[in-house]
Amino acid sequence: MGRQGPTEEVGDLAKPKVALWPGPPIYIALLHYPVYDRQERVTATALTTLDIHDVARLARTYGLKGFYVVTPLQSQQTLARRLIDHWVTGRGAAYNPTRMEALSLVRIADDLEAVVTGIEQEEGRKAKTVATTARRYAGSRSFGEIKKLLSKRGGAPYLILLGTGWGLTREVAEGADYLLEPIGGKGYNHLSVRTAAAIILDRLLGGVAR
Amino acid sequence: MGRQGPTEEVGDLAKPKVALWPGPPIYIALLHYPVYDRQERVTATALTTLDIHDVARLARTYGLKGFYVVTPLQSQQTLARRLIDHWVTGRGAAYNPTRMEALSLVRIADDLEAVVTGIEQEEGRKAKTVATTARRYAGSRSFGEIKKLLSKRGGAPYLILLGTGWGLTREVAEGADYLLEPIGGKGYNHLSVRTAAAIILDRLLGGVAR
Repeated sequence: MGRQGPTEEVGDLAKPKVALWPGPPIYIALLHYPVYDRQERVTATALTTLDIHDVARLARTYGLKGFYVVTPLQSQQTLARRLIDHWVTGRGAAYNPTRMEALSLVRIADDLEAVVTGIEQEEGRKAKTVATTARRYAGSRSFGEIKKLLSKRGGAPYLILLGTGWGLTREVAEGADYLLEPIGGKGYNHLSVRTAAAIILDRLLGGVAR
Repeated sequence: MGRQGPTEEVGDLAKPKVALWPGPPIYIALLHYPVYDRQERVTATALTTLDIHDVARLARTYGLKGFYVVTPLQSQQTLARRLIDHWVTGRGAAYNPTRMEALSLVRIADDLEAVVTGIEQEEGRKAKTVATTARRYAGSRSFGEIKKLLSKRGGAPYLILLGTGWGLTREVAEGADYLLEPIGGKGYNHLSVRTAAAIILDRLLGGVAR
């Protein structure tokens, strides 16, 4: 297929030029409450540790300033803290420094309000919230519209909201400043929150030529 | 923010129009061997059941014809079969039909050769392979180039290769018909294979306006 021979770079992990996202500071939050369960009841879901790893690595990849794990359950917060400590200051940090880099972005919060307050303290401005959902609601914005917002310099910080379980409740979705359209797909719309987060961040913040 | 009130559609899971991918049949394979471990030794990794779920749901979302889980380890194949049977023909099928739909795309194979043979039997043509990697190799193709190939009607089937662990070996990467450029990112390149698969499929096959 005309593949060329190897160069000096062959086999190295690709290191793209470090380019900070030029727009406003962007945060992401993974909500374990309030979300729907499969019967559309409002529930608090359990942590999935792989979600924390995956979304932290995405947050690092796309230059986000912070990743909030949101749960009101103290036992779950303890679990999350133990995981983060292991990789950020514990034995995991030496074992795998790239995980440390990613997991050092993680913060823990009781609820969405605490996230908004935390960002306001850090940035001196209230964040605009962007809810994501696989459901179709009126007034949702296209990926293109939200991408444009996120690239404006000097604006307010943004906070992207992800729901675990069967997704963010209608109250959270409709209470956000912006609601992002569903990812869509060929007649099927049941991705894991990890992979949905990947697609959403890549569409909104991915700088690679398409 | 000028969000409009709810319409009839509110709260429904978004059901985009069913539109089959217009190009050639596309398959994906998740290789557990041969891949690198963190010391760059060639190894066989253990299955991660969430990977199977996540990639199956992605395969269904992006209209792929099949998803091969590749491992030479018989104990791991048994584990994968048990998982698939549970969701496709067992109790899981009634519990969660959308998982059945996704997991019914999964096949199991001993090695890459068996995958290629399987697709050739199904399609009557040998598949062109597209290797994906976070490493930079000479002669890799851009997402745009590969996207164009995958949209040509009447062509050969394509097989996208994903590596677990620390990625596909150089032999597999360089032995493929095409090698896709790394996802890139802001100076950080350590995504999970699940989230990398999501971004790759969305960039290559996502039909949503950007």
